[in-house]
Amino acid sequence: MDYKQKSLELHEKYQWKIETKLKTAIANRDDLSTVYSPWVAAPCLEIAKDKSLAKKYTLKGNTVAVISDGSAVLGLGNIGPEASLPVMEWKCALFKEFADVNAFPIVLDTQDTEEIIRTIKNIAPGFGGINLEDISAPRCFEIEERLKAELDIPVFHDDQHGTAIVCLAGLINALKITGKKKEEIKVVINGVGAAGVAVTKLLLKYGVKDIVVVDSAWVIHKWRKDLNPVKEMLTNVTNTACILDPTSSECIIWGLEQAVRWRDVFLWVSAPWVLTKEMVQSMNSDSIIFAMANPVPEIMPEDAFDAGAKIIATGRSDYPNQINNVLVFPGIFKGALESWVNDITDEMKIAAAEGLASAVKKPSADKIIPGPFEKWIADIVANAVKNAA
Amino acid sequence: MDYKQKSLELHEKYQWKIETKLKTAIANRDDLSTVYSPWVAAPCLEIAKDKSLAKKYTLKGNTVAVISDGSAVLGLGNIGPEASLPVMEWKCALFKEFADVNAFPIVLDTQDTEEIIRTIKNIAPGFGGINLEDISAPRCFEIEERLKAELDIPVFHDDQHGTAIVCLAGLINALKITGKKKEEIKVVINGVGAAGVAVTKLLLKYGVKDIVVVDSAWVIHKWRKDLNPVKEMLTNVTNTACILDPTSSECIIWGLEQAVRWRDVFLWVSAPWVLTKEMVQSMNSDSIIFAMANPVPEIMPEDAFDAGAKIIATGRSDYPNQINNVLVFPGIFKGALESWVNDITDEMKIAAAEGLASAVKKPSADKIIPGPFEKWIADIVANAVKNAA
Repeated sequence: MDYKQKSLELHEKYQWKIETKLKTAIANRDDLSTVYSPWVAAPCLEIAKDKSLAKKYTLKGNTVAVISDGSAVLGLGNIGPEASLPVMEWKCALFKEFADVNAFPIVLDTQDTEEIIRTIKNIAPGFGGINLEDISAPRCFEIEERLKAELDIPVFHDDQHGTAIVCLAGLINALKITGKKKEEIKVVINGVGAAGVAVTKLLLKYGVKDIVVVDSAWVIHKWRKDLNPVKEMLTNVTNTACILDPTSSECIIWGLEQAVRWRDVFLWVSAPWVLTKEMVQSMNSDSIIFAMANPVPEIMPEDAFDAGAKIIATGRSDYPNQINNVLVFPGIFKGALESWVNDITDEMKIAAAEGLASAVKKPSADKIIPGPFEKWIADIVANAVKNAA
Repeated sequence: MDYKQKSLELHEKYQWKIETKLKTAIANRDDLSTVYSPWVAAPCLEIAKDKSLAKKYTLKGNTVAVISDGSAVLGLGNIGPEASLPVMEWKCALFKEFADVNAFPIVLDTQDTEEIIRTIKNIAPGFGGINLEDISAPRCFEIEERLKAELDIPVFHDDQHGTAIVCLAGLINALKITGKKKEEIKVVINGVGAAGVAVTKLLLKYGVKDIVVVDSAWVIHKWRKDLNPVKEMLTNVTNTACILDPTSSECIIWGLEQAVRWRDVFLWVSAPWVLTKEMVQSMNSDSIIFAMANPVPEIMPEDAFDAGAKIIATGRSDYPNQINNVLVFPGIFKGALESWVNDITDEMKIAAAEGLASAVKKPSADKIIPGPFEKWIADIVANAVKNAA
């Protein structure tokens, strides 16, 4: 089957993947005058007195904006706002399908950080939450931080935190299976984009102590002079021992090949095939590998097992343990909207990951996280967020 | 019945008046991989090559943004963006109900003209059209003009043009009934807000020659020194004879009471009760009155008839001839979106008014325009727009 052709045909046939739907009929003049002119004035005047009532009387109570500038769309790169629309529409469809949260795509005709922040602040009054999507690093970090500080509704960059939460959930179960402890494991994270940075921060918050991060060149390290501000920040919280080679007392700046040695966990998003069987063999026993490059992972699962890995997760649907953000973002926003919080905190993220992990009753090497079509998962995540709120 | 209380209860019960709905199911992994990751890349890459294909493959093809800054909401005034949301949501619901056009409310946390223009341009790539709503005059004129010039999708300020089109439709039938001719009628328009200015311009474009406009003080007149740029513009195209009193050869600056004398048509939006029976008696015989202040019109229909008016239209649903924009905006955008035009021209507006007028098979003093629940009207308007395109 020609999937590309089939996809184009389906996208043309459905054209808009989501449409609007009325919740109540407007059948006659009495309906129209009660809910619209002139009696719509009643909720308008209540909200004019107290803005927070917009959540009670309008779609602000259950609607998320899915916002992208089209700068880092899937693996396609900077394809611009119009071309990012199909992805954003499907994202909105998944919000509805998995959590009955209304979501609407907004794609931006600017890639300037300040302009993006201004625009999102200007359109925020009509939304209950902001889901940032496919905005390239490092701009995505500043945009999210500023909006979190300056808006009174939850702001969540899914490429960062959705990914981080589902990874943490998988890791929680992987540790149960292997008997390793979060305070003792040695983690190597490959890739310093939106996901890599967020995973690093969330694992540290969760209680993991020893993380080494590797970018496309070398281990992130405080002696390096080529680091952007985000990587500089990472030098304070990762690779803290500054000793990678236990046979040496000197701090040696290494690449990925050396960095994976004697590590327990390999996490993530970089490029196909970067992890060789020899590198997996150099890791500690019962190693845990999250190889998320898509569609071709850093190492194929069969090769990883062959080299001694205990657990492997990928982004693919044709292997067990698919790491998929759809397990997280619908429930995260459902919980946040239903509890009227104005921020999604680290505590809520960890609660969501623990909830997601606990949804797998008997974790095994083949099942560390739920599958994407177990739709009740969104409620588990939402309830975890609400309890943490 | 306490309509206010009922309205509040209904708005709380439904909370969001519109919600999103999937057009196609996502039932299993195969669906997900065909339409979403990884095969969503197919339409993304097509659109990246040719932006115009966004209309073919995404919701841009059939989705309108209903945008307000909350500065002039119904008769409630400047109540701000959150408080305008119920009105904008219903407007979106009406788009769907009457023309199957998807519409989504965007309310803006700024009332600065430049900032509004920037913000709308920044979010435009995801929409097929922009419906401006309840933005106060005179800012609304510049905002619409600039956006029409700088965007490649239709921009339509409904308070101006929706109102103008439905008025022109009613006037076309009123002229048929009274046997008056557009080139000969003398029109007085009271009110120089968004609607008054747009009605004036559209009637002139349609071929009406003699229009006098009155603001809250006096007749608009080239000797006045207190005019804003929009009123200045009107001095060039209205009151051109500069003679209002046929017994005098001098140009006398009059107020409304003098301006209605010997006029055939009184149009519009000002304030309750401004038109007295004596003033109607001073108009030409078979006078036509559009008294649209809501809920209390400039003159009550029974008083107008009593004073000799032939035809009266109001904004109210409990009298015949309700002038209601819902007859226009759904069909206007349906026609514009289906014909992929990048502007809604005066020719299209006149075609829409003529189509709307022709939908009344046998016009009478009691029926110069269709009722708002004759839903097939949207198709008549849409087809008129498409033929003019």
